[in-house]
Amino acid sequence: MKKVLIDCDPGIDDALALALAAGSPDALDVVGVTTVGGNVDLPLTTANALALREFLRMGDVPVTPGSAGALLRHTVRATQVHGTTGLGDVVLPAPRLGPSEGHAVDFIVDTLRAAPGEITLVAVGPLTNVALAVRREPRVVEWARDLVIMGGSYTRGNRTPAAEFNMLADPEAAAIVFEAGWTVTMLGLDVTLSALVTTEVLERMRPLGRLADLLVPAAQFYGVVTAEGGPAIHDACAVAYVLDPGLFTCVPAVVNVETTGEFTRGMTVTDFRVGDRKANALVATSLNVPAFWDLVVGAYERLADRLG
Amino acid sequence: MKKVLIDCDPGIDDALALALAAGSPDALDVVGVTTVGGNVDLPLTTANALALREFLRMGDVPVTPGSAGALLRHTVRATQVHGTTGLGDVVLPAPRLGPSEGHAVDFIVDTLRAAPGEITLVAVGPLTNVALAVRREPRVVEWARDLVIMGGSYTRGNRTPAAEFNMLADPEAAAIVFEAGWTVTMLGLDVTLSALVTTEVLERMRPLGRLADLLVPAAQFYGVVTAEGGPAIHDACAVAYVLDPGLFTCVPAVVNVETTGEFTRGMTVTDFRVGDRKANALVATSLNVPAFWDLVVGAYERLADRLG
Amino acid sequence: MKKVLIDCDPGIDDALALALAAGSPDALDVVGVTTVGGNVDLPLTTANALALREFLRMGDVPVTPGSAGALLRHTVRATQVHGTTGLGDVVLPAPRLGPSEGHAVDFIVDTLRAAPGEITLVAVGPLTNVALAVRREPRVVEWARDLVIMGGSYTRGNRTPAAEFNMLADPEAAAIVFEAGWTVTMLGLDVTLSALVTTEVLERMRPLGRLADLLVPAAQFYGVVTAEGGPAIHDACAVAYVLDPGLFTCVPAVVNVETTGEFTRGMTVTDFRVGDRKANALVATSLNVPAFWDLVVGAYERLADRLG
Amino acid sequence: MKKVLIDCDPGIDDALALALAAGSPDALDVVGVTTVGGNVDLPLTTANALALREFLRMGDVPVTPGSAGALLRHTVRATQVHGTTGLGDVVLPAPRLGPSEGHAVDFIVDTLRAAPGEITLVAVGPLTNVALAVRREPRVVEWARDLVIMGGSYTRGNRTPAAEFNMLADPEAAAIVFEAGWTVTMLGLDVTLSALVTTEVLERMRPLGRLADLLVPAAQFYGVVTAEGGPAIHDACAVAYVLDPGLFTCVPAVVNVETTGEFTRGMTVTDFRVGDRKANALVATSLNVPAFWDLVVGAYERLADRLG
Repeated sequence: MKKVLIDCDPGIDDALALALAAGSPDALDVVGVTTVGGNVDLPLTTANALALREFLRMGDVPVTPGSAGALLRHTVRATQVHGTTGLGDVVLPAPRLGPSEGHAVDFIVDTLRAAPGEITLVAVGPLTNVALAVRREPRVVEWARDLVIMGGSYTRGNRTPAAEFNMLADPEAAAIVFEAGWTVTMLGLDVTLSALVTTEVLERMRPLGRLADLLVPAAQFYGVVTAEGGPAIHDACAVAYVLDPGLFTCVPAVVNVETTGEFTRGMTVTDFRVGDRKANALVATSLNVPAFWDLVVGAYERLADRLG
Repeated sequence: MKKVLIDCDPGIDDALALALAAGSPDALDVVGVTTVGGNVDLPLTTANALALREFLRMGDVPVTPGSAGALLRHTVRATQVHGTTGLGDVVLPAPRLGPSEGHAVDFIVDTLRAAPGEITLVAVGPLTNVALAVRREPRVVEWARDLVIMGGSYTRGNRTPAAEFNMLADPEAAAIVFEAGWTVTMLGLDVTLSALVTTEVLERMRPLGRLADLLVPAAQFYGVVTAEGGPAIHDACAVAYVLDPGLFTCVPAVVNVETTGEFTRGMTVTDFRVGDRKANALVATSLNVPAFWDLVVGAYERLADRLG
Repeated sequence: MKKVLIDCDPGIDDALALALAAGSPDALDVVGVTTVGGNVDLPLTTANALALREFLRMGDVPVTPGSAGALLRHTVRATQVHGTTGLGDVVLPAPRLGPSEGHAVDFIVDTLRAAPGEITLVAVGPLTNVALAVRREPRVVEWARDLVIMGGSYTRGNRTPAAEFNMLADPEAAAIVFEAGWTVTMLGLDVTLSALVTTEVLERMRPLGRLADLLVPAAQFYGVVTAEGGPAIHDACAVAYVLDPGLFTCVPAVVNVETTGEFTRGMTVTDFRVGDRKANALVATSLNVPAFWDLVVGAYERLADRLG
Repeated sequence: MKKVLIDCDPGIDDALALALAAGSPDALDVVGVTTVGGNVDLPLTTANALALREFLRMGDVPVTPGSAGALLRHTVRATQVHGTTGLGDVVLPAPRLGPSEGHAVDFIVDTLRAAPGEITLVAVGPLTNVALAVRREPRVVEWARDLVIMGGSYTRGNRTPAAEFNMLADPEAAAIVFEAGWTVTMLGLDVTLSALVTTEVLERMRPLGRLADLLVPAAQFYGVVTAEGGPAIHDACAVAYVLDPGLFTCVPAVVNVETTGEFTRGMTVTDFRVGDRKANALVATSLNVPAFWDLVVGAYERLADRLG
């Protein structure tokens, strides 16, 4: 049973990641969800997290809103990808419960402090909250059991040729996080772009009752599903990694986040020639795709049973 | 009676600024002191703030430590200017009381929230705490009555040809603070370099008993005192401004903090041609030097009477 | 008798600088004029140089066109200052002679090679031609007797708060020139902004017959003439320096040209604390204004006699 | 019969590229070779080009030296890859003939001017000479039939994680070349890293008599030859492209060269989403490897016959 704190910006693939967590109650204990402005604005990512908590029957796990914008730079959004609400054209029932008091940064600091070495921080949005937590209380780096992020790439970006969206959305925060002293497990586009919802995967989701009402239209909004390809459910990779690290090959590397380039801001410049330096990242280089989908669909099926 | 919250990194001129505040009890209500790593490391700036609180008989004003290092960049220190302890060769009595619980950023946020529109934030070190407060709770910008900083320059720097020390020590924090939406009152080197402890000023400090034991050697450590010149007590200008804004001429400007230049990081690029833009700063362009010293020495004399 | 090669972008103050050279035939031997795109486009700066050569009776001094645009960056122009033609509303007689064959860069290289140690290069526009000459033939640095430029500032810029126009118009070229190994004599805004055409100066120009038809309207287009102020004839300072270096106080410095800053591109970051480093510049810090105008007006008077 | 002007910095793979050209006399007319500082210093790249001209029996094709260092930045060399002489441990007979008079930049400009539309410029070193030619005479962009470069990458670099060596060695020159208005055919690491001298290829080179004395030890110095891998003869790809463009798949793209990043300088940021913009590059994305080696080895065999 691993404890995880999920920092996210739902976001379609965030929703699919939360569903994966919700469908793995024997393996994961979600101690909290924090939200950040990212795919869409903070009020929407928070509203979506609240709606998802109830829809996915995540119980009383606290949902705490955090940073609305990037640490330093102007805001970048991905509404063209996730729709204006952040969940495509899926409309979930209005949640009955509101967010927790307080701020995500404090929640992260306090939660990690209370259980040093126990909680894995899973961050699948811009790293603003995590960076602020690090600066607010540098010991979070020691208290966290691990930090697993969806973000970056060691080859090419998606939002720009050089940068992946989450990193571009707050390059300075990403730089703080990678330089903080821990080893960041980085699940970047290099692997997440192989986690594609193909026709075959979609067919496995269709019979899942109420849950299918979320999964199927969300995936279809997110990209064109074909036999060979489909939308990549990036964020679910981070949860999958916590559930089964063996799905991924990971390689130590020195990752520097570019903050000053004219065409390269937000790039995770990844040097596998670590040499005498300390590796600050474990970078995923391959994914066992069939095993990944077995894990994910299996969790969705268990969850579907609960949801009815 | 103006309420002020002083964020500082003592630091010799910070000490002289605190003495000015402590000597102005009828005009100023110091609601708190927060510390930041700057001139010297955070444990020293905090220790100095604690020792000064008692030496200057500032009562139970809370002293709360904050950020140890810059938001993003490597740490810059000024021990060559302030000595290894931060107070030159002055050794103050060990304080009996320790710092408050909690973190400066929270103290700033909570204190401003509790009295919106009432408290002037006076920041005379690197702007790390203030920037984190802004990102942690954007409404501090509305809650603060005013933000008065010692830092920057619209002509030349001191630590580098382009950058003043406090800005160079955390350019990204300074950029956040200047872009936050309020109007920053910037007392830069352009005016503080005229606040010089000349021989004449020093002679006015010598008779001040116990207080002179702090002021005189501190000033002499800080620079060479002559009839024409002497060390500039930069930080005291910020407190003096709150006490009597009329000492300064201030001009609206658009200030951008350079964060990416090869030779210009930390420069406060100041455009007085505001045009249609919103001025984000009131920039001091001249100081009434005799009146400044009358104010400062007057406060020191009142304080000396109290200290014995 | 000093030999000078003048690289310029006429431009009103370039015209006044050429007039100063033309009026000093006993002291200066102008071995060539090269043109560069700057205040206005290259075809106009070349046309203006050709018209001026004849109007000012500079004989058969070759005029050779050079670089149209900046080395790397987009073009910056100053037509709002110099008018669409580059000479305000002055219309000179059409020249009979055209430009020399070849390119300014080759002319600079060949001319300096032919007389090593003899020729002072005076550059009063963007430094594109000079930089290309340095890269095309690094020995020009040894062959030039001296390099005197109008450009830069150690305090504030004019086109931006940080950058003077000539430097901003080609920062990379300026960086190449300052790093080339010679000592650049830099006459920046710090002094040229004291070379003002006041009412008194204008009155001394008015009686100069045909020459006054150029000088007076050019100056009046260039800025508002009052008893206390007026337009600064920047470029003429460079020629005046060659004629009488004693007019200026110059201080050794290390000058770095910022090429990468967000708000500071083109800034000449000037460090007077040279220390163990080699000074790469002699930076003018003050100008003897009355003596400057005596020199300039004296030359104009001699020239006016020749022009009738 | 295609006319080519080869700008190079031999360099082991440059040598193999020149051998490919020399072995293709029916298809290629080499109108000139120009040299640039790159893999090793300019005197060495020029000496190597001269020795190769005679060893490869290239007749009286002019060899003209050009730029010693980068346009703006400090020099980067690859002596760890190419050995201190630039040709590994191969020692060629001393050449009898010296270089041509003049400078590579002038040679490029004059040669292209003399035959507009006829000559393909093949640049396989840092782009300093080409950039200076463009700035010296912008019409070279129209006069060149084509520009084919070995350099860059749309995925990862080799000298740094982000940058390929030739681009890193002069990022500003590369930026000038890509922005000059022509369509650059870019053969980057993405394809050149598939042009590997494997054991099988090496066995085809061994029987080539005198030529093998160059090819085999050069290749072996350049990298470890195995059945599956081996050194990539990057530069030969550019000559191969001219000989048979059909060997490569090329895709239109917008390429921007990063000049200002902290970790990304020299990166060829390649955007395949051209949209409404003008593609400034044709970027090679795949190579027909067997056909490549047939072409190369065939040319080497023909050349070996001539050399004996």
